[in-house]
Amino acid sequence: MSISDNVRARMVEGSWVRKMFEEGAVLKQRYGEENVFDLSLGNPVMEPPPEFAQELKRLVENPLPGMHRYMANAGYSETRAAVAAQLSLETSLEFTMNDIVMTCGAAGGLNVVLKTILNPGEEVVVFAPYFLEFGNYIDNHGGVTKVVPTDEQFIPKLDALEAAITARTKGVIINSPNNPTGVVYSEDFIHQLGDLLGRKESQYGTHIFLISDEAYRKIIYDGLKYPPVFHHHRHTVVTTSHSKDLALPGERIGYIAIHPECSQREELVGGFIFCNRTLGFVNAPALMQHAVQNLQQVTVSVAEYQKKRDFLYGHLVEMGYSLVKPQGAFYMFPKSPLEDDVAFVNELQQWNVLAVPGRGFGSPGHFRLSYCVSDRTLEGSLAGFKKAAQKLNLC
Amino acid sequence: MSISDNVRARMVEGSWVRKMFEEGAVLKQRYGEENVFDLSLGNPVMEPPPEFAQELKRLVENPLPGMHRYMANAGYSETRAAVAAQLSLETSLEFTMNDIVMTCGAAGGLNVVLKTILNPGEEVVVFAPYFLEFGNYIDNHGGVTKVVPTDEQFIPKLDALEAAITARTKGVIINSPNNPTGVVYSEDFIHQLGDLLGRKESQYGTHIFLISDEAYRKIIYDGLKYPPVFHHHRHTVVTTSHSKDLALPGERIGYIAIHPECSQREELVGGFIFCNRTLGFVNAPALMQHAVQNLQQVTVSVAEYQKKRDFLYGHLVEMGYSLVKPQGAFYMFPKSPLEDDVAFVNELQQWNVLAVPGRGFGSPGHFRLSYCVSDRTLEGSLAGFKKAAQKLNLC
Repeated sequence: MSISDNVRARMVEGSWVRKMFEEGAVLKQRYGEENVFDLSLGNPVMEPPPEFAQELKRLVENPLPGMHRYMANAGYSETRAAVAAQLSLETSLEFTMNDIVMTCGAAGGLNVVLKTILNPGEEVVVFAPYFLEFGNYIDNHGGVTKVVPTDEQFIPKLDALEAAITARTKGVIINSPNNPTGVVYSEDFIHQLGDLLGRKESQYGTHIFLISDEAYRKIIYDGLKYPPVFHHHRHTVVTTSHSKDLALPGERIGYIAIHPECSQREELVGGFIFCNRTLGFVNAPALMQHAVQNLQQVTVSVAEYQKKRDFLYGHLVEMGYSLVKPQGAFYMFPKSPLEDDVAFVNELQQWNVLAVPGRGFGSPGHFRLSYCVSDRTLEGSLAGFKKAAQKLNLC
Repeated sequence: MSISDNVRARMVEGSWVRKMFEEGAVLKQRYGEENVFDLSLGNPVMEPPPEFAQELKRLVENPLPGMHRYMANAGYSETRAAVAAQLSLETSLEFTMNDIVMTCGAAGGLNVVLKTILNPGEEVVVFAPYFLEFGNYIDNHGGVTKVVPTDEQFIPKLDALEAAITARTKGVIINSPNNPTGVVYSEDFIHQLGDLLGRKESQYGTHIFLISDEAYRKIIYDGLKYPPVFHHHRHTVVTTSHSKDLALPGERIGYIAIHPECSQREELVGGFIFCNRTLGFVNAPALMQHAVQNLQQVTVSVAEYQKKRDFLYGHLVEMGYSLVKPQGAFYMFPKSPLEDDVAFVNELQQWNVLAVPGRGFGSPGHFRLSYCVSDRTLEGSLAGFKKAAQKLNLC
């Protein structure tokens, strides 16, 4: 009687990450925090880099007059210009501050973009496995989620995408490096994707936005380079945050960047600014905008994440688990040794190891591990993985 | 082709505050910042109180481990408990942290509340003049805005409200101290309002939420006490922020507080937390949650705002303007000497004084002045008000 029917239904459907969080809390209370090995959350254990602490200290000790006041809803010109300069450097395209809107993280940015572009009933494609919140975000603004599968290597199937695109397709969300798989899309793949979208736009006389969620852009391993998506489709909008690269997830600071040559760019940016305001974000948090302005080239220690990946990946393979080696982000997405991924996650729980079932990402038959945790947690989890592997005769 | 039809339409309809901001920017460029007297924006000129600076310094110099990480979507337990303790003190009701959800300001909180409760087509009442964003917020979540008038003193007309409430009415938004009028509702009025809502709930067998936007609760003059709304209706939800009381509008920190005895309280709070997450706020900014925890009894200098009110109010009355004396917030809403409020605001602009026409708040025939500006700006504006008054023979 009180709560919206849709919200109630979506709450029940729920978040598996959240569910694991709650079950984990019970285990931790029963066995002690140090005896539970929680690989269920993408909440980086690393502190922000020292440069961030310095910037924050500088700002707090020498406050700028009015630095906690409202600014333009798009954010501070200086911060937007700094982001634009960095993107210009990374992409060789000419970004200006007018292509950038500062947002409350990537989650805020995605909601702003979707609200801006979606008419009721228009479709947005996501590729399974995917961050399930995408479905909530699309639904928030009256859109319809179309799920397209990926192949064995978690690369989207372009023939399936081609079949899924209709005259009502308004956007395609990609996320590379990927949550939950850790896969990084190749430049060649992105080129083919952009090419397909361009052809479909011509076929239907529409604009199809490539919405690239790049929250993990800077967390990338093995000397791989991140291939800029902008080069391959003019209707590209990037949403990202400093949650992972500066380890600031609680601070809600990120941005939207639009292709400088996107058609109707000015109206779109006007829409982003309007929706940033009217969805209630108003503006990205002021102090954090100041703090990240000079940190566009700073990133947490990626080598440390790579070491964690190597450690966990090596041990899991040795135990007989089957998985695609992640090249970025801080997740891996092994095959579930049991057909029922929830049953397997429950099995791991018997050994006080917390993971998220693949169905929490639209891909049952897998499970997600997050390794942005302490080495002690990773080391402690091995016994549980080993026992589960032995019980199920993986080797 | 790119932007949503609804967003485009709402952008064109636009915000008068924003329009004045843009026209003001042109004037400032032409005549110099110091020669334009901008009373159009509710962006407090005051710096946050020294206690805030101290808290921030303490946190930055002695960082808590993980203090920039994700926390539960509802916010830190310690911060929620501090807010609950303060509300218990102010209301003599027993709030616990489970009644509190930390939000990205009151704008974020209102969107979260409306998303949580509204089914498509359900109605929410607002009282004109009102903060026009309320209409955008309601529309964001599929609701329908019903505008009910106020009387000459800007007190909502309860007979009109009674006539406006239907079986589809899900909420009534009030804002006291009020933007744009500065009016503070009396306890007697709130009692009558709660009584009416209770009767209508019985009549229709519904729950009607009293959504009390209390962003200006602590900015109140003449020794007036703020009458807690909670006492008068069980289905009350308060949204507020520290934007005004701690002068932190750019930082986006506020909270939702639900009546501890609200029916279906647990499901509602679960909905708030869910919507806080899925609308993309995720959580209120972490550092600001830490910072405001110990500042629940701290407020900027209200005496200083009162001085500004007395100054501007006194001069305007003397010049012949007709207005209700504001008792809180930092706005006044005089009658427009010209029937066409836009024409009068343009008249003021001739003298480099910026105001917002009443139609920007759903009440043509008035204009809004914001006096959270420097004394120099207030003093400088008088010449323009005087010239306009003389030209229109007000005295």
